[in-house]
Amino acid sequence: VTTLGHVAIVGAGQVGTMLGTALRSGGAAAGVALFDTDPDALESSLARGAGDVALESADHAVDADVVVLATPIPEIVRLIETFGPRARPGSLLLDTGSAKRVVVRAMRSSVPPGVHAVGGHPMAGTETRGPAGARPEALSGATFVLCPIGDDEAAIAAGRSFVEAVGARPFVMDADEHDRIVAVTSHVPHLLAFALAALAGRVGEARPTADLASTGFRSATRLAASDPSTTAAFLSANADLVLEALDGFGTAMDELVARLDDAEALGDLLAAGGAARARLIAER
Amino acid sequence: VTTLGHVAIVGAGQVGTMLGTALRSGGAAAGVALFDTDPDALESSLARGAGDVALESADHAVDADVVVLATPIPEIVRLIETFGPRARPGSLLLDTGSAKRVVVRAMRSSVPPGVHAVGGHPMAGTETRGPAGARPEALSGATFVLCPIGDDEAAIAAGRSFVEAVGARPFVMDADEHDRIVAVTSHVPHLLAFALAALAGRVGEARPTADLASTGFRSATRLAASDPSTTAAFLSANADLVLEALDGFGTAMDELVARLDDAEALGDLLAAGGAARARLIAER
Repeated sequence: VTTLGHVAIVGAGQVGTMLGTALRSGGAAAGVALFDTDPDALESSLARGAGDVALESADHAVDADVVVLATPIPEIVRLIETFGPRARPGSLLLDTGSAKRVVVRAMRSSVPPGVHAVGGHPMAGTETRGPAGARPEALSGATFVLCPIGDDEAAIAAGRSFVEAVGARPFVMDADEHDRIVAVTSHVPHLLAFALAALAGRVGEARPTADLASTGFRSATRLAASDPSTTAAFLSANADLVLEALDGFGTAMDELVARLDDAEALGDLLAAGGAARARLIAER
Repeated sequence: VTTLGHVAIVGAGQVGTMLGTALRSGGAAAGVALFDTDPDALESSLARGAGDVALESADHAVDADVVVLATPIPEIVRLIETFGPRARPGSLLLDTGSAKRVVVRAMRSSVPPGVHAVGGHPMAGTETRGPAGARPEALSGATFVLCPIGDDEAAIAAGRSFVEAVGARPFVMDADEHDRIVAVTSHVPHLLAFALAALAGRVGEARPTADLASTGFRSATRLAASDPSTTAAFLSANADLVLEALDGFGTAMDELVARLDDAEALGDLLAAGGAARARLIAER
């Protein structure tokens, strides 16, 4: 059943391609239209089956029943400000950015009543950029956060239908709470990975670092393969809570470093960290 | 051709099991004898094909032509001090610890002339503990560091033969240089992963952190699945150079954090880090 009607996805990168492909294989959309300012990305995304048709401009997205903004964060905010006021009453407006306060704020001020707007964040990304990095199957059972912009129950219900249509698990939460948690689980990890990569690069100018960079280094820096400008955009959008998370991270590091000379005490503390990770992973 | 003669491996955990299995499938050893203080690990390692026979005690390892110490670092040092003086002239004594200065120092003071001793570090570990974590195929083409304890050319030659017999790539380097680099490529990454896991565990006590811990969090904390006491042992053994690497890491982090409010400048810096990682990985 095509419960979602016509869906337009603005942004045919990794996330837009993943969502379009999952939607089309699920069959809940009457049609999926795609737009991207980069014609190569658009073509590649369509070739991967992410859409039935290409839109000539982002403007045409407002005709759809569901509009998904899947661009980097500053562009999401700009699109909400530009197209939000012209969105069709009764339609669903959803985004996919990984920092939600700025998006929800823009939706509150630019989207007229009658349009069902909700912030979204599908937690199923990869580090491969563009359409080639899309893994529609990763959406299966993945958390897809929905952040209400007010008390529009119909917006949340429509958001849930969309999330279920791509095979993910709707998780409704406050934008502030979302941003606070992803600062720890995603944003700080991105910073650590890029800083570690930069340090290894510097050391590598004088020493055979590549030869001693094993699988552990690869996984520890995997997030540093992410698109730099997209990453910079969500880090900047969440700067205050990233700094707060870094405070907590610094405390955790200090506790470990203080025990570097006492392998037994250090081992106990490491065991607690390892157990925390195992618990978090088992809970999902 | 059984060029290595009889090999004894002390420590039937992940590394000992990996080396024993690779040796036996390569056919360069006349036989592989295994020992572990943990009878379950020993049995499981033998069941995985890592040895032809179990040794009754570590004492019996001295009868072999090649003795491999594959235990955590403090135990490697203790074994060198205890059995080193009784090692057979002409035999090869090799270890697998991931901090090499302490090992090379112990070999210098406890191993008599005529015994060919060399520090070793196969860079093909996994985060799954014990024999079950052994991936013998990961040795194929992997860097296997050899750290000379002096100018014993025969020790290096024997070490090379051993490394080639398990399918790895011998990489001869100074223990100090090794410890300096792995502080950056492995030891600091372990600390970061455990600290991040600990922080997420704390945040998770009050907030739905597990739901927002996606693949990025998993890879960023993958090293925190490592055995805590083994990890604590090599971090402690390399504490001074870990602190030095942490200084460099702090500088790299400060540079990123200083640009959190300027997405464009931050993006440029992230791009440089990402490029450094890509270069290091391409060089291997």
